[in-house]
Amino acid sequence: MATAATLDAVVRAAGPQLGSLMERVEQRLTELTAGHGQLLAEHAGTTIAAGGKRLRPLLVLLAAGESAAPTDRLIRSAVAVELIHSASLVHDDVLDRAPVRRGRPTVFAAAGRTVATATGDLLFSRAFAELAASGEAADVRALSGASSALAAGELMQRADAWDVGVSLDRYLERCELKTGALFEAACRLGALATAGPDEALAAFGRRIGLAFQLLDDVLDVSGPASRTGKARGTDLLDGTVTLPLIIARERDPALAATDLRALATAEQAESICDRIAATGALSDAKERALAVVAEAKAGLPALPLRQQATLELVADGVVERYS
Amino acid sequence: MATAATLDAVVRAAGPQLGSLMERVEQRLTELTAGHGQLLAEHAGTTIAAGGKRLRPLLVLLAAGESAAPTDRLIRSAVAVELIHSASLVHDDVLDRAPVRRGRPTVFAAAGRTVATATGDLLFSRAFAELAASGEAADVRALSGASSALAAGELMQRADAWDVGVSLDRYLERCELKTGALFEAACRLGALATAGPDEALAAFGRRIGLAFQLLDDVLDVSGPASRTGKARGTDLLDGTVTLPLIIARERDPALAATDLRALATAEQAESICDRIAATGALSDAKERALAVVAEAKAGLPALPLRQQATLELVADGVVERYS
Repeated sequence: MATAATLDAVVRAAGPQLGSLMERVEQRLTELTAGHGQLLAEHAGTTIAAGGKRLRPLLVLLAAGESAAPTDRLIRSAVAVELIHSASLVHDDVLDRAPVRRGRPTVFAAAGRTVATATGDLLFSRAFAELAASGEAADVRALSGASSALAAGELMQRADAWDVGVSLDRYLERCELKTGALFEAACRLGALATAGPDEALAAFGRRIGLAFQLLDDVLDVSGPASRTGKARGTDLLDGTVTLPLIIARERDPALAATDLRALATAEQAESICDRIAATGALSDAKERALAVVAEAKAGLPALPLRQQATLELVADGVVERYS
Repeated sequence: MATAATLDAVVRAAGPQLGSLMERVEQRLTELTAGHGQLLAEHAGTTIAAGGKRLRPLLVLLAAGESAAPTDRLIRSAVAVELIHSASLVHDDVLDRAPVRRGRPTVFAAAGRTVATATGDLLFSRAFAELAASGEAADVRALSGASSALAAGELMQRADAWDVGVSLDRYLERCELKTGALFEAACRLGALATAGPDEALAAFGRRIGLAFQLLDDVLDVSGPASRTGKARGTDLLDGTVTLPLIIARERDPALAATDLRALATAEQAESICDRIAATGALSDAKERALAVVAEAKAGLPALPLRQQATLELVADGVVERYS
């Protein structure tokens, strides 16, 4: 999500301790995937190694702050959050029949749906095993809440598919379930492992997760494909109605009357994208995401200066990938 | 697995308390599926309602015994085990593209693979949420171990698919992962909720789970389809090599040389089943399963008489469905 440059800046700003903690997280992820048989090592290992920016574990560590000595519990929480994220990616790729993720073949493409489904289930199970080893019920509660939300968000997206009239509130709820909840859990788990429960930090996580999803949905319409790595309008072809269309349909009656099921080609989807863009909906949707980021930053609790600055950097990273 | 008659006998033998606890389990399962949105209520509700004999929750309650007052923790454990079982069935049905389970359309058939995958993930997450509410890390550990085993067993089955020469040890390990581990967790959780950890009870669960899987694999070859509800040789068509073939290949060189990938029709699969049966492998495989049941019973720890008798009835139920 955030660019690699931003995250490098975060790690620099947060001081050397963060870098060494992130290394422990990586080590543990490697151990886990290596320790469960050749198939998991092969498939999950690849998925996890390809694994993006590790933003969720980073949030766990940043939410924990630097005052307390880093514990095994903290590392386990960071690892568990990333495992749930990876499990959901592996399952999503089965559902989307996706051939490639982050430049590598998906588990689905390399090994088929049976192996991919089981690999996702195993990553999922290992996430809870990781937390069970810490012995903290509050941690399990936070993670199971987020993983339930993820699945519920997916179900909601299916239930609302092809409905061009879906309400803004339902859309926002879906984004919080699909994306906000795991970011929230990351911040919650970090706080739990050190200073104790912190609802304000949890809300920060939820908001930047929401902003991330809003911007992701803008990028699906705005492209360019050369930057996002996928064709414009992919969501529309799946029947997924997002903020740009929700805003644009109020301004262009033809869009409100669009039957998404009739979209058959990438070209047709692109022409709907152009039509959405012509209403000015993209910049309004982006504004809304920026407002959520601002709200996230404004709502941060009183924190040590360096911790606050790094969390704000992460929040800005959500925006930066757009601009 | 066990026949309804056996389970009725178990409930009768165990006394009235068991019946009322099983009702609390049913109630909680209904509440859970009703409490997570319409889609889950619709799909998971149907799966869980169609849900078979509730053998795993029954084992949780029987392993707990009657000496301690039943706690919420016990009910939550019984519910969690059934949720993991249901989640795995929902995912299996996606992988097998199964139209019907227990006489009702599967979630996959009724709502497609996206909804079915997400429904399985949600049931999975709710299982851990259920245990997190008890606040007992040992319970989470037991369940995450079992759910990891389930997925690892599935991966192992894929890795060994089409290999007619798969070793007996690998086959037995796969059965323990796929089926034994959740039965084991059921007994382990029941003991944890009352008297405390009991490895002998856990081993009982693992053994009857193993015996269950062995007999299931015999039934796939022996049929009749009118009784099992599926065509003979379904496993063979999937490339899944099980005990009857592992025994028979030593006696019939043509079987050892069979290329399962060449099996294209149900008739061809049936003719391999006949050939396996002709070696006498089915009764030997059944013998082995009966020996595991006997071992399970012999290994039971010292228990109150009624508790021991009901656990033995359950063990016998595994056999009874065969005879």
